[in-house]
Amino acid sequence: MTANLLLQCPDQKGVIAAVSQLLYGFGCNVVASDQRITFDFSDIVIGPGNTAVLERAIAELASRYQMKWKLAYKNKVKRLAILVSKQDHCLYDLLIRHRSKELICEIPLIVSNHPDLKHIADTFGVPFHHLPLSKEPGAKEAQEAALEALLERENVDVGYCERHWSHTINIHHSFLPAFEGGRPYHRAHERGVKIIGATAHFATAELDAGPIIDQGVTRITHRDSVEDMIRKGRDLERLVLARAVRWHLDDRVMVYNNKTVVFED
Amino acid sequence: MTANLLLQCPDQKGVIAAVSQLLYGFGCNVVASDQRITFDFSDIVIGPGNTAVLERAIAELASRYQMKWKLAYKNKVKRLAILVSKQDHCLYDLLIRHRSKELICEIPLIVSNHPDLKHIADTFGVPFHHLPLSKEPGAKEAQEAALEALLERENVDVGYCERHWSHTINIHHSFLPAFEGGRPYHRAHERGVKIIGATAHFATAELDAGPIIDQGVTRITHRDSVEDMIRKGRDLERLVLARAVRWHLDDRVMVYNNKTVVFED
Amino acid sequence: MTANLLLQCPDQKGVIAAVSQLLYGFGCNVVASDQRITFDFSDIVIGPGNTAVLERAIAELASRYQMKWKLAYKNKVKRLAILVSKQDHCLYDLLIRHRSKELICEIPLIVSNHPDLKHIADTFGVPFHHLPLSKEPGAKEAQEAALEALLERENVDVGYCERHWSHTINIHHSFLPAFEGGRPYHRAHERGVKIIGATAHFATAELDAGPIIDQGVTRITHRDSVEDMIRKGRDLERLVLARAVRWHLDDRVMVYNNKTVVFED
Amino acid sequence: MTANLLLQCPDQKGVIAAVSQLLYGFGCNVVASDQRITFDFSDIVIGPGNTAVLERAIAELASRYQMKWKLAYKNKVKRLAILVSKQDHCLYDLLIRHRSKELICEIPLIVSNHPDLKHIADTFGVPFHHLPLSKEPGAKEAQEAALEALLERENVDVGYCERHWSHTINIHHSFLPAFEGGRPYHRAHERGVKIIGATAHFATAELDAGPIIDQGVTRITHRDSVEDMIRKGRDLERLVLARAVRWHLDDRVMVYNNKTVVFED
Repeated sequence: MTANLLLQCPDQKGVIAAVSQLLYGFGCNVVASDQRITFDFSDIVIGPGNTAVLERAIAELASRYQMKWKLAYKNKVKRLAILVSKQDHCLYDLLIRHRSKELICEIPLIVSNHPDLKHIADTFGVPFHHLPLSKEPGAKEAQEAALEALLERENVDVGYCERHWSHTINIHHSFLPAFEGGRPYHRAHERGVKIIGATAHFATAELDAGPIIDQGVTRITHRDSVEDMIRKGRDLERLVLARAVRWHLDDRVMVYNNKTVVFED
Repeated sequence: MTANLLLQCPDQKGVIAAVSQLLYGFGCNVVASDQRITFDFSDIVIGPGNTAVLERAIAELASRYQMKWKLAYKNKVKRLAILVSKQDHCLYDLLIRHRSKELICEIPLIVSNHPDLKHIADTFGVPFHHLPLSKEPGAKEAQEAALEALLERENVDVGYCERHWSHTINIHHSFLPAFEGGRPYHRAHERGVKIIGATAHFATAELDAGPIIDQGVTRITHRDSVEDMIRKGRDLERLVLARAVRWHLDDRVMVYNNKTVVFED
Repeated sequence: MTANLLLQCPDQKGVIAAVSQLLYGFGCNVVASDQRITFDFSDIVIGPGNTAVLERAIAELASRYQMKWKLAYKNKVKRLAILVSKQDHCLYDLLIRHRSKELICEIPLIVSNHPDLKHIADTFGVPFHHLPLSKEPGAKEAQEAALEALLERENVDVGYCERHWSHTINIHHSFLPAFEGGRPYHRAHERGVKIIGATAHFATAELDAGPIIDQGVTRITHRDSVEDMIRKGRDLERLVLARAVRWHLDDRVMVYNNKTVVFED
Repeated sequence: MTANLLLQCPDQKGVIAAVSQLLYGFGCNVVASDQRITFDFSDIVIGPGNTAVLERAIAELASRYQMKWKLAYKNKVKRLAILVSKQDHCLYDLLIRHRSKELICEIPLIVSNHPDLKHIADTFGVPFHHLPLSKEPGAKEAQEAALEALLERENVDVGYCERHWSHTINIHHSFLPAFEGGRPYHRAHERGVKIIGATAHFATAELDAGPIIDQGVTRITHRDSVEDMIRKGRDLERLVLARAVRWHLDDRVMVYNNKTVVFED
């Protein structure tokens, strides 16, 4: 069994030695590490002992050094829910990367507020749940409650959504913090920018203000219409979202102070 | 003699034919053209006739097709003033590109509100004008009047400034419209972005809202401090500003609706 | 009906005027043009007249100015054959872009020397032809003859192949001309490069030496294994191939002297 | 005093623990580390003890784990010689980055086989040595001996050269291994590539085959002439060389198997 151990603590002498010694003492072999603001001992091959004892030892060390810590075992395949609206490019991309084993996870369900993309879910054999949003009072709360119930029933670890629900990775169609909010490509065209972008971030209550996981950009010119920008943006969105999801599934992302530490592979 | 002819008019039949025929009739040879929203007949080799007559003919055609037009003769070498504060990297860059004939222009003066960079002006043999800004009432207006008088006396066509004066190309230390205003790298670090940028734009009365000429970006990670970002940003700023200035000196930039059309080389 | 007119001729006075005048005379409205080494009158809205007469007029003009010319009517949707071996990522990508109308074409068949990817063809409802290659003498010639017969029967205009057949767009897994030939990622890893690339080019008899349509690159580090490079390369290959195919379907690519002129959109 | 410790050894249990424990035992505080194929303990704050004893301890550990190791103390400012021919852009760039403290080193001399760039050396107050190369028999050997003597007399640690001498960082005007050898931009233009590059590498006896430190690329189109490519390439060369030199001055580059491990900052 392998695991990733992410640590964060104030700079002080002997921390690496103490952690390394502890892992060695438990028969763990550290395959890769990275350490600047935080520590990342990734791909630790866990020794044959009891993981509960290992965790207690880490917890004790952590309290001594004022560490925040997260030990992510890699034997557990995460369960990913895909939350979409009407755009299909990211949905296709995630399903294909999953099928080709580039994304190691289970995808137990696709949820949408529209029925339009059910045919794609059928093609890839993933259950599709339609949670429509009526305009009646309380409809939004009811829809969110139904979604939460679904995600809980299916033991979902992570979600991707085109729109904003909590506890999910969202792809925003711009280079945040430029063009927060709606219709970003239209506003980018209006402003006359020469580069457009896409941003994958953790969704938070405050729209488009969550911790950024990854961003990508591409050049445009005055000849690009809004439609051209949307088309070029789709490729960006696919790549940026796929990287963010893969890093998250692989426990390479750690959040602190509304920012992320990413141990890129 | 060669010239660039930039035209903008509503889409209608026969416009290209009419303009091409007119130029041909005046013995002009069109070496390059580009036409989407606007027309660009660049590197026109002007025939031996009277340019005033050519201009009258273009003006007449323009009124028939509701065209805006700009005919820029390339025999006129532009005069560039460099307006700096305390940072030296863009100043060095422009002076070196000028010396190596990459920027074809005259640089009759460097102006600054601080004396710090005078030694660079001396090194490259360019007159340096120190226009300090005191805190007395009316000092800012007096400084601006002195600057205007200087620029007029030296027949300056275009300026580059680190700070904001009118009629100049400005380099902003971020990927506009993200982080408009002051301390952009500090705010980018605070927000946790994964890409930083630089933006060359025409300065306007409204701070950082002028037409964008060019932008550039570079990836950063959580390991980059504000100082690292400033260092990486300097290289971006140099490249983006140099491209913008070169295009402008070469009459490749046309402004409309607070956006730019750039005929990149 | 719209069309693209690509012209190439020696630099001489009056060429643009003559072509523009001719198109105007036939009631054609030129929506976009680009002209440097060659001329590109793209998205010409053809007038109501007889296209045969227009073509005769262009041919006559062309002979006067020693022009090569190509008039591509946009009413004709091209037919694209996809030739694959065992790798699925470009196949998926082309099929999805086709389904989402980003690639405007018909895809009447998928051909492979292996049966492995038939399930993808079935998913997207495209006929799959398995042309296995035995090791018997003459097997290669027989396979190629069968392929040619298939392509002819299906009126195919353009092909994409993972391996090398003639008259097709090929994606090479490196930044050509670096690492021509087999196992490019292994050799890139061996050489210790810091950037990898992908190249879409027209296949020619000489392996990997055909005209380059587009290239893309991505940074790697010493930490990337061959497998990491292959994974990162897949995203490049998808993007670069899709751009090349789209430009070709849209008649934006013109070949001369084993190089391409591409009128990027 | 701080130091960088670079280690390389076969993968085995307890290595990180052993090294970390040793450094801790000597009162060293590890500020940053990175470890995949190799270990990098960078910015180690060395304790007050005797560095010779520390080195002996590391050597002993190294022999136990079959480690190659390199401990680079940061108190020693390296001495950089700049070897140029006739092109001035990289020379200017290094001198300016040195003056602005972006490159922390001493530059005791500039050497050239041509007198053309002496004025730049004078401008920045660096001694200039002209070592002309006549066509007489033995002239090349004599020139190289004179260069070696100069570099030795000046205690030079690292050199940058435009042409190929040994023990130096070289900037090659292409994306190696494409276009090894002479006139790379001309050959890139001839081949019709869509992206050009620059490569900083350690010079070795075999031309253009030394370990690659960094590479950069930029897009071009069919409209770019060889001269345009040379101009765009200059910016690449500047950036790529400056990064390679800075990393090398900062002991972030380690060579093994003709490849480099770079601990990017």
